[in-house]
Amino acid sequence: MNYNNRVYNFSAGPSMLPLEVLERAGSEITNANGSGQSIMEMSHRSADFKPIIVEAERRIRALMQVPNNYRILFLQGGGWTQFSMVPLNLGGLSKSGMAETATYIDTGVWASKAAEEASKYLDIQIGASSKDKNYTYIPSAPPPQETDAYYYICLNNTIVGTKWNNLPKTEGVPLVADISSCILSETLDISKFGLVFAGAQKNLGPAGCTIVIIREDLIGAAPHITPAMLNYKTHADECSLFNTPPVWSIYVINLVLEWIEKNGGAEGMKKRNAQKAALLYACLDSAKNFYAPVLKADRSLMNVPFLLKDFDQKQDEKQEKQKIEIEKKFLQEAAREGLVNLAGHRLVGGLRASIYNAMPLEGVQKLCSFIEKFDKSL
Amino acid sequence: MNYNNRVYNFSAGPSMLPLEVLERAGSEITNANGSGQSIMEMSHRSADFKPIIVEAERRIRALMQVPNNYRILFLQGGGWTQFSMVPLNLGGLSKSGMAETATYIDTGVWASKAAEEASKYLDIQIGASSKDKNYTYIPSAPPPQETDAYYYICLNNTIVGTKWNNLPKTEGVPLVADISSCILSETLDISKFGLVFAGAQKNLGPAGCTIVIIREDLIGAAPHITPAMLNYKTHADECSLFNTPPVWSIYVINLVLEWIEKNGGAEGMKKRNAQKAALLYACLDSAKNFYAPVLKADRSLMNVPFLLKDFDQKQDEKQEKQKIEIEKKFLQEAAREGLVNLAGHRLVGGLRASIYNAMPLEGVQKLCSFIEKFDKSL
Repeated sequence: MNYNNRVYNFSAGPSMLPLEVLERAGSEITNANGSGQSIMEMSHRSADFKPIIVEAERRIRALMQVPNNYRILFLQGGGWTQFSMVPLNLGGLSKSGMAETATYIDTGVWASKAAEEASKYLDIQIGASSKDKNYTYIPSAPPPQETDAYYYICLNNTIVGTKWNNLPKTEGVPLVADISSCILSETLDISKFGLVFAGAQKNLGPAGCTIVIIREDLIGAAPHITPAMLNYKTHADECSLFNTPPVWSIYVINLVLEWIEKNGGAEGMKKRNAQKAALLYACLDSAKNFYAPVLKADRSLMNVPFLLKDFDQKQDEKQEKQKIEIEKKFLQEAAREGLVNLAGHRLVGGLRASIYNAMPLEGVQKLCSFIEKFDKSL
Repeated sequence: MNYNNRVYNFSAGPSMLPLEVLERAGSEITNANGSGQSIMEMSHRSADFKPIIVEAERRIRALMQVPNNYRILFLQGGGWTQFSMVPLNLGGLSKSGMAETATYIDTGVWASKAAEEASKYLDIQIGASSKDKNYTYIPSAPPPQETDAYYYICLNNTIVGTKWNNLPKTEGVPLVADISSCILSETLDISKFGLVFAGAQKNLGPAGCTIVIIREDLIGAAPHITPAMLNYKTHADECSLFNTPPVWSIYVINLVLEWIEKNGGAEGMKKRNAQKAALLYACLDSAKNFYAPVLKADRSLMNVPFLLKDFDQKQDEKQEKQKIEIEKKFLQEAAREGLVNLAGHRLVGGLRASIYNAMPLEGVQKLCSFIEKFDKSL
C-alpha cells in the first residue's frame, strides 16, 4: 500500500506520535534552536542539549506528580533490561534483611517473562495467574511473602488488553510496575510504587529510551557484580548522563510531553483515552461477529484485542482456515482505508487496536465505522 | 550564539552527520516511503521497517567486508554495556578451558574503564600502559597469557587521540576492539578480530545504537546469570529483533551507510580522512604556540587534541589562569566563525578537534585558517 496521507496506526509499539511533534522535529532537523546543529549531532554534555533532558525530567515530574523522594532516569535497553535490573538492584532489600524472594503476578507474556528473568537472581513466587482464562482478567493479588524484596506487576498488558484498576496491597513491600503501555495515559499515584518503568515507544516517543521512576531509598543496593550500566545508582549519580544517552529519543519525548501538557496533562489524556476506549468497546460489544474477550472491569484503555465470535472455541481445520481468511480480509480492507497494524499479537492471534495517547478520536471513530461495516458484510 | 547556517561541529560525539542524510530524514519524517507513518512510529516487526535493518546489516557487511562467519548485531547501551558484555560472554572461552583471565592494554580512559568493569568478572592483566606519558603513544603489546579468554584494545582513543596502527599478535586468543571512534573511517581487516563494537554516535549515526560484529564461535558461552539483554546469543538468535530496537537510529545509520557507499566506501573515507588529518596535523606542527602532543606514528585520523606550547609543563597559578583565558578566547572566537565544540575532554583539558567521516574538508580548512590566525595573534 502506498499512502499520500498519514494513516491511523494501531500498532502496539512503536506507534503513533502526534503529527505536530513530528512536524516540529522535522522543521529543525538540520538546525535546532539556532545551534547550527541537528539534535542528533549534539554532544550530550553541551549547553545545547542539557536543557532538553532537564526539561523532559521536569515535565515528567510535573505531569505525573512524581514526589521529591523519587528519581527519574532516562535509560536504554527497553523493558527487557528492566526485567534484569529490578531483581539485580532491588534483590537485596527485603524486610528480613535476606535477599531471596519476590512475588510476581502472571498477567501474560510480559509479566511472565519478567518473572523468568528475575528467577536467575531470586527465588520467584508467582502469587497469582490468569493463565486459566487466557489472561482475559486480572487475578486477585495475594499479600506478599515476608521475605519479598519487592512485588511485581505489569500494570497494563499490551498483548491481552487487561489493566490493573486496583493495585495489590503490598504491606510496605515495594510495588514494582511495568507501565510501558500506559504511562501518562491517565493519572497514577506514584507514591504507591517503589519503582515504575516504561519503554518510550508506546505513549512517549521513539524507541530507544526507557523511563524509570524509582524511590531514592531503593537505589544503591546492587551487588558488586552488577554490570555498571544495569545499576540504577550509576545513572542516578550522573543524572542520566553517565554515558551518551539516546539524545534524539529524549528530545522527541520532551516534545511529546509538551504536547501532553498542552492537551490537559494526565487528566486530559485520561478523558481523551476513556472516550476513545468507550467508543471502541461499545462497537465491539454490539457487534454480531466480533467480541472483546477481556472481562469488562479489567479492560485496558490502550490495547483492545478482539476476536471473531464463531471461532473462539475448539475448531476443526476448515473453520480455522476460514477464520484466517476473514481476518486477512479485515486487515486488507482496513489498510485500504488507512487503518493499519490491526493484527493481534503473534502469540494470541485475532485482531487488536492499540489506541495510545497520540491516536486521535477520529481514528477510533473511523475504525468503529469500518468494524460495523465489515461486521454486517459477514 | 545563534546560527542561521550549519556550523562545523568538532564534537567527539554525538557529532556531525552528512547534511544530505539529515535532509532526507527530515523530508520523510511524517511519511516514510509511502507508509503513511514516520520511521519513529513503525512497528519493528512490520514489513515497513524490516527491510531497513536488513539493508543496514547488508551494507555494513559489504562496506567492512565482514566475513560470513561473523554476525552483525544492532544493540543498545553504548560502549559501556559492551564493557560488561565482553567479559560476561567471552569469559568462559580460554584455550586452557578455564575462565579466569583477559589481557587489556591501557591506552587511556576508555580502555582502563573497560578493564575495570571486566575485573568484576575476570582476573584482568593490564598487559601494557602508556600512562607514563599521558597516553600520548601506543605501548608495545605483550603476548597474551595462556589462560586469556580474550585480548582487549581500544583501537582509536577518542580522548587522547592515539590509534593502533599495528595490531597486537594474540596467538589465536580472540582480539576484542572498541572501534567506537573509528568504525568505517578507514579499511579494517575484521578477520583479525574476535569481536569489535562501536557506538553509532561518532561515525555512523545518532546515539542509541551500538554495532557489534562478533565471530560466530564466540556466541553462546555466557553463564546462566547473564542478563538476557547482555547475552549476544539473545540478539544473534533473533537478528537484533529480540525486543524493540532503536528503529530511528538504525534508519539514520542506514542512510549514513548509503552516503559512505556513494562516497567511495571505507577506502573513500580513508582517503578523505587522511587528507583532513594531514592538513590539521601540519597546521599544528608548524604553529608557534600550539602543538599536537601525540607521537606521530600513533596519531589518530579522527581525534586531534592540541595544547598551548608554553603551558604544557608545571605551571604556577598565574600561568595556569592565563592559559585558561587563552583557551576560552580561542573557543569563543572559533564559535563566532561557526567552528564549535573544540574544547578538550574534561579529563585532559586543552583543545581537541574530532574530524569524523561527516566533517567536510572545508571544515578542517576553515579550522586551520583560524588556528593560524589565532596563533599569530598570541
